[in-house]
Amino acid sequence: MTHLIAIGGSDAGISAALRARELDPTVDVTVVVADRYPNYSICGIPYYFSGEVQPWQSLAHRTAADLEATGMNLRLDTWATGIDVAGQRLEVRGPDGIIEQLGYDELVVGTGALPSHAGITGLDQLTADDGVHVIHSMGDTFALDTRLDERDPKTAVIVGAGYVGLEMAEAFTVRGIKVTQLQRGPEVLSTLDPELGAIVHAELDTHDVEVITRTTVTGIEKTSDGLVVRGVREDGRFARLADLVLVVVGVRPNTELLEHAGATLGAGGAVVVDEHMRTGLPHVYSAGDGTVTHHRLLGPTYLPLGTTAHKQGRVAGENALGGNARFAGSVGTQVVKVFDIVAARTGLRDHDAAAAGYQPLTVGATADDHKRYYPGSHPISFQITGDNRDGRLLGAQLVGTLGTEVAKRVDTFATALYAGLTIEQISELDLSYTPPLGSPWDAVQAATQAWSAATRS
Amino acid sequence: MTHLIAIGGSDAGISAALRARELDPTVDVTVVVADRYPNYSICGIPYYFSGEVQPWQSLAHRTAADLEATGMNLRLDTWATGIDVAGQRLEVRGPDGIIEQLGYDELVVGTGALPSHAGITGLDQLTADDGVHVIHSMGDTFALDTRLDERDPKTAVIVGAGYVGLEMAEAFTVRGIKVTQLQRGPEVLSTLDPELGAIVHAELDTHDVEVITRTTVTGIEKTSDGLVVRGVREDGRFARLADLVLVVVGVRPNTELLEHAGATLGAGGAVVVDEHMRTGLPHVYSAGDGTVTHHRLLGPTYLPLGTTAHKQGRVAGENALGGNARFAGSVGTQVVKVFDIVAARTGLRDHDAAAAGYQPLTVGATADDHKRYYPGSHPISFQITGDNRDGRLLGAQLVGTLGTEVAKRVDTFATALYAGLTIEQISELDLSYTPPLGSPWDAVQAATQAWSAATRS
Repeated sequence: MTHLIAIGGSDAGISAALRARELDPTVDVTVVVADRYPNYSICGIPYYFSGEVQPWQSLAHRTAADLEATGMNLRLDTWATGIDVAGQRLEVRGPDGIIEQLGYDELVVGTGALPSHAGITGLDQLTADDGVHVIHSMGDTFALDTRLDERDPKTAVIVGAGYVGLEMAEAFTVRGIKVTQLQRGPEVLSTLDPELGAIVHAELDTHDVEVITRTTVTGIEKTSDGLVVRGVREDGRFARLADLVLVVVGVRPNTELLEHAGATLGAGGAVVVDEHMRTGLPHVYSAGDGTVTHHRLLGPTYLPLGTTAHKQGRVAGENALGGNARFAGSVGTQVVKVFDIVAARTGLRDHDAAAAGYQPLTVGATADDHKRYYPGSHPISFQITGDNRDGRLLGAQLVGTLGTEVAKRVDTFATALYAGLTIEQISELDLSYTPPLGSPWDAVQAATQAWSAATRS
Repeated sequence: MTHLIAIGGSDAGISAALRARELDPTVDVTVVVADRYPNYSICGIPYYFSGEVQPWQSLAHRTAADLEATGMNLRLDTWATGIDVAGQRLEVRGPDGIIEQLGYDELVVGTGALPSHAGITGLDQLTADDGVHVIHSMGDTFALDTRLDERDPKTAVIVGAGYVGLEMAEAFTVRGIKVTQLQRGPEVLSTLDPELGAIVHAELDTHDVEVITRTTVTGIEKTSDGLVVRGVREDGRFARLADLVLVVVGVRPNTELLEHAGATLGAGGAVVVDEHMRTGLPHVYSAGDGTVTHHRLLGPTYLPLGTTAHKQGRVAGENALGGNARFAGSVGTQVVKVFDIVAARTGLRDHDAAAAGYQPLTVGATADDHKRYYPGSHPISFQITGDNRDGRLLGAQLVGTLGTEVAKRVDTFATALYAGLTIEQISELDLSYTPPLGSPWDAVQAATQAWSAATRS
């Protein structure tokens, strides 16, 4: 009987284990989980803090009992400390501190990522006990929860205005905490063009989030008055006092285990794998946020996303049983809700595309989500990027009001990118129309037609 | 200077005229419009009757002034009565009854469709003055409007439970008219599988629309008590008295003009065209609801839809100026909102696919529109049809609550059909995810994975 071990209780590890049990109910599957919270939706944590999701247990995609009902074994509070590749043994330290060697036939490593510190001094000493938080695990969640309950902070500085930073700005605001959001670049949500990021910025303004851009945080200090966040701006130094600081400036791959085992590191310092999620080490697969991502337009890159981790884990779980699945690649599709605005992107932006050797043209457009005569229509703002040489779609960005189906309109572009369609071909698509929900030429096609018109002029 | 005449003030004719003026501002464009209402959104009429759209003028996609501002000439209240193909002359009868010959270099015919009578006796005599209505033009709209104002009907029979019939059932119900909806087949919305039609049926029940299926209407009579709708059912005869009757049992192509000019009729009795929208008659194009539709999975078919008419008209307008555009084909994408339910389809259903020589397998699935832990999630019901031989997607049907982004989720399938993707490839797509609006495997992919699982078992 094959023994598969998956390391990691988040998307990649659990997906691998589920896939293996689904394909072969005789396979022996063990999942090694560093904490007590396997299969939690980390993406859902901001909604716990906003109060929209209660209790925290409902954040579990599946309970431990659900997982065990599939026939997998969970080793909770257990750290994977070393891989003996030749001997096919995994060394783990259990909850009681005892070191054990677990034999495996196949190993899937899904150790994920760690919060980045972005060179900010103070972060190596200051912790949740000081009011300085990250938000990456259920442990971080409980620590922040305790802090909010016990100290009732009135002001928070959020360092970073990416997806999680924006969601947490909303959550804190809903709770009555006055938020100052610091962003290094010229506009929030730097994964979108500033024209579209500005719409999100305006929504933050409306909800009294203080947004300060072009500010690089250099350090955090604890003083008797509270926490002081210091940084630099074009016009000089910056300092702000707050009761609580949340640092959400991205993640770095957690590769220590595989690096020591001899795996190769690549893009973004993540573990290199082939499209079958093989590390090159015999019987060892890697998947999820610690692993390079094959991007269909860029090749190997580092782009840690839950959707990708699910897919990579599933591929690894299938191949560990002798399958021949391959990860088809990401196109970098992302979406975020910020108060009543939804912002989405897929593919490449102009500068990414140019850097990768494409000859991009990016055109902005605005189109109503549905016929204006029907109540409740709202404009959607687009940025469409295509290759000037052959008209191939390279990327799309969309921002609209909640309810304008932006999240699933970006999927039309993501599907077109997967299939390698041109922008003209998107204008040919037979998309759905009814006046309350669309237009005879969908908003998506109003945008692609604007791109085509720009290439003619 | 080229003179282009477009016949028809609805989607096809206007799209052709707009495209021609867009591509070449020197071209002389005349649009011959049978009534005074060019470029009205016929799909929006039900929302005028529900009161959501007011006044009726707002149903215009563009006003006559907007159209004329593009440089096109409108000949309103003008009937095209004959085409002299060899002489390149169009005979028209103007509002004053005077017959005129208009010379053209290129002619685009977009005469559309006429309401079908489905063999119901009485429909050739009874009119709006008797309380028997169709709903196909602004004239029909005004006639029904007048009837509702002047007679204040309390009860209506709607013959037909397709897209327009369902939308009008909602509109009448909102106005306080008690609706009985008659459907020939076993379930409403016969363009969907009955499993999904049943969800729409339940929504009609909730709103006190009386739905009577398996009833073929044979005749309508005017009596002193009101209108009597008669029909047959499996269990015998059927009769129902009502203050008003609306007949919405589909359309038939309006081809008289082109037929007399020598054009060939094909699928559904519609005018045959090539992919460039050429009729085969020199300098004569046809587009819209009077024309056959190239279906990417079926070849030539008759499938009158506004989205298609826009695309065909645009192609005809471009080619009339010497272009080489082609209509890429429909995949039969449709969506309808019925009260708080949205129902969508694209591609082929099982029996359509089997009849066309595919080897279909259809699998049902249900998946939440977004993570269940986030408030407001609702299940979406799917029917997925794929070819058992090669796994190619053949069609998808979706029904969900308003707000579940069903209208734009069907577009992912429509895009996949265009690109010829397999169902496994849809499971590989990098679709967007955030907990309030999706899942790490989108609902679309939960459905395609269910199809794949069914093929393994």
